[in-house]
Amino acid sequence: MLNGGSSSGKTGIARCLQTLLPEPWIRIGVDDLVDALPPSLLDTDSGISFGQHGEVAVSGGFRAIEAAWMAGLAAMARAGARIIVDEVFLGGAASQERTRAHLDSLQVLWVGVHCEPAIAAAREMARGDRATGMAASQALMVHQDVVYDIEVDTSHTESLDCARLVADRCAVLQ
Amino acid sequence: MLNGGSSSGKTGIARCLQTLLPEPWIRIGVDDLVDALPPSLLDTDSGISFGQHGEVAVSGGFRAIEAAWMAGLAAMARAGARIIVDEVFLGGAASQERTRAHLDSLQVLWVGVHCEPAIAAAREMARGDRATGMAASQALMVHQDVVYDIEVDTSHTESLDCARLVADRCAVLQ
Amino acid sequence: MLNGGSSSGKTGIARCLQTLLPEPWIRIGVDDLVDALPPSLLDTDSGISFGQHGEVAVSGGFRAIEAAWMAGLAAMARAGARIIVDEVFLGGAASQERTRAHLDSLQVLWVGVHCEPAIAAAREMARGDRATGMAASQALMVHQDVVYDIEVDTSHTESLDCARLVADRCAVLQ
Amino acid sequence: MLNGGSSSGKTGIARCLQTLLPEPWIRIGVDDLVDALPPSLLDTDSGISFGQHGEVAVSGGFRAIEAAWMAGLAAMARAGARIIVDEVFLGGAASQERTRAHLDSLQVLWVGVHCEPAIAAAREMARGDRATGMAASQALMVHQDVVYDIEVDTSHTESLDCARLVADRCAVLQ
Repeated sequence: MLNGGSSSGKTGIARCLQTLLPEPWIRIGVDDLVDALPPSLLDTDSGISFGQHGEVAVSGGFRAIEAAWMAGLAAMARAGARIIVDEVFLGGAASQERTRAHLDSLQVLWVGVHCEPAIAAAREMARGDRATGMAASQALMVHQDVVYDIEVDTSHTESLDCARLVADRCAVLQ
Repeated sequence: MLNGGSSSGKTGIARCLQTLLPEPWIRIGVDDLVDALPPSLLDTDSGISFGQHGEVAVSGGFRAIEAAWMAGLAAMARAGARIIVDEVFLGGAASQERTRAHLDSLQVLWVGVHCEPAIAAAREMARGDRATGMAASQALMVHQDVVYDIEVDTSHTESLDCARLVADRCAVLQ
Repeated sequence: MLNGGSSSGKTGIARCLQTLLPEPWIRIGVDDLVDALPPSLLDTDSGISFGQHGEVAVSGGFRAIEAAWMAGLAAMARAGARIIVDEVFLGGAASQERTRAHLDSLQVLWVGVHCEPAIAAAREMARGDRATGMAASQALMVHQDVVYDIEVDTSHTESLDCARLVADRCAVLQ
Repeated sequence: MLNGGSSSGKTGIARCLQTLLPEPWIRIGVDDLVDALPPSLLDTDSGISFGQHGEVAVSGGFRAIEAAWMAGLAAMARAGARIIVDEVFLGGAASQERTRAHLDSLQVLWVGVHCEPAIAAAREMARGDRATGMAASQALMVHQDVVYDIEVDTSHTESLDCARLVADRCAVLQ
């Protein structure tokens, strides 16, 4: 379970993990859930909406589907799939608790993906496909009181090197 | 559960359904699973591979993950999510049986999405992002002995109009 | 020069033409120009902006770059490139005149790509990546007083079949 | 004119430049040309082809279109467009000479975008949308005997900071 703000490098680490880890792991993230949503839950009061300055607002309609989605990912894992989940805990510790409630009986490695706000903002500008402001606003918030098994920081370390640290911990766990 | 060959118009119908149906439905397809796979399961003997002429070869490593993935979608649905699944039953009736085995206790509408092979091939050329040959080779094969609740044909009917027929059946079911 | 409204099927026809025509043709469209723009010209008063209901507003800053871009395409063609241009004449005949002024000494086939507004709107919903309303609002407007060498209609004819008609005219011209 | 190997960070620098520079600059690269090509010039002996291990082979048919394309970009610039070109000089100095021949009378800032081969390869793995091997094979080759006005290195410097160095040089030039 990789948790980090927008443009912190989670997806890059996840892709590298897929190459490094000897067993097949699939990669699923909250972005996939957002892509799967109907128009009625996008940019509306009843779903998830993205402001002009990168702020994200989430309402009950989104939360209900997100809970079912996480229950489904847990079931995939119980059915034998190894999953790298790419998450953004907008609510910090509260999000972690909500997530953890679904993962009963599963072996989970909680990974904090840090990135200095200014560097995440610079990468957001360079990638050009996210609303300006999202990276800086989420960089610290998503880690608030979250408890990790391992933490990496992409500010001055390549995604691949961060992934190596995570893969080493996975090897120990298994 | 929408089943149809490549370029038959399943995704278009699914998107229209998301707009037409009054409740929020999420849209997930086997393409999402393929996107989630590690390099070790793509274009290799142990996963899923796509030939030069659109042929798709699937091996045990892919089948195992696909089964866990379908078990997960079923769990999402049991947890309350309404899901439009975009599927390609490469094995026809056998694929349907494999899928059905996961969907116990769920209300499923089996939808056949037909498209004449020559028309699907023409649309494949127009979209330009699929291997040439995939549409024609799958057009009939995926429906072999599959049993449907409703069948639509996009050959001469817009996706939106096909979606209306499906939405009407959903309304009756609920 | 293919002119048609959003979701009228221009790009599909252009891709089919690339396969049908015996010589290599490259495909460039106004969407590529929009993708190339800096943030300062996107969704601002000084560039091109896209409204919530599909309306497109264009200002002088965009027009200046568009003129240079079209001059560049003309130069590519004079240097020997065969180009399929995918255009949206928001200003109808006025847009055509502005475009024509750059194409001096070049052989141009003006192709009108029609699609009934309701059908274009249905396809816009099915593709899901354009603002709702753009297709319907542009469907007739872009053809206002434009003069064509050939006109096709994708409402009830596949892109590939439309492309065949255009390719036949290209063959006669050369 | 930004020249660098695959995954060296050219596009990120280009996007940041678009934000940093006070005037509107458009961003066009050889990737756009490749996207514009017909199937007959892709992965065939007569066009451009990409090998399993990231090697790129270019033949006369591609060279002819590339020359017309560059002549067109030069014409856009002469017509007043400011252009950030994102290039890969596979032939090193020879590619630069071929390019320079089109840019007569234009003010060009030649920018070398370096990245250590191992770091570019790591980023290639993290992005996941390029053939493995392309980054490492191009990292040094594209700079062979090329003469630059300014050189930046993304190995340990963010794209935005590299872009700032380039923007400062642009400011001096104008």
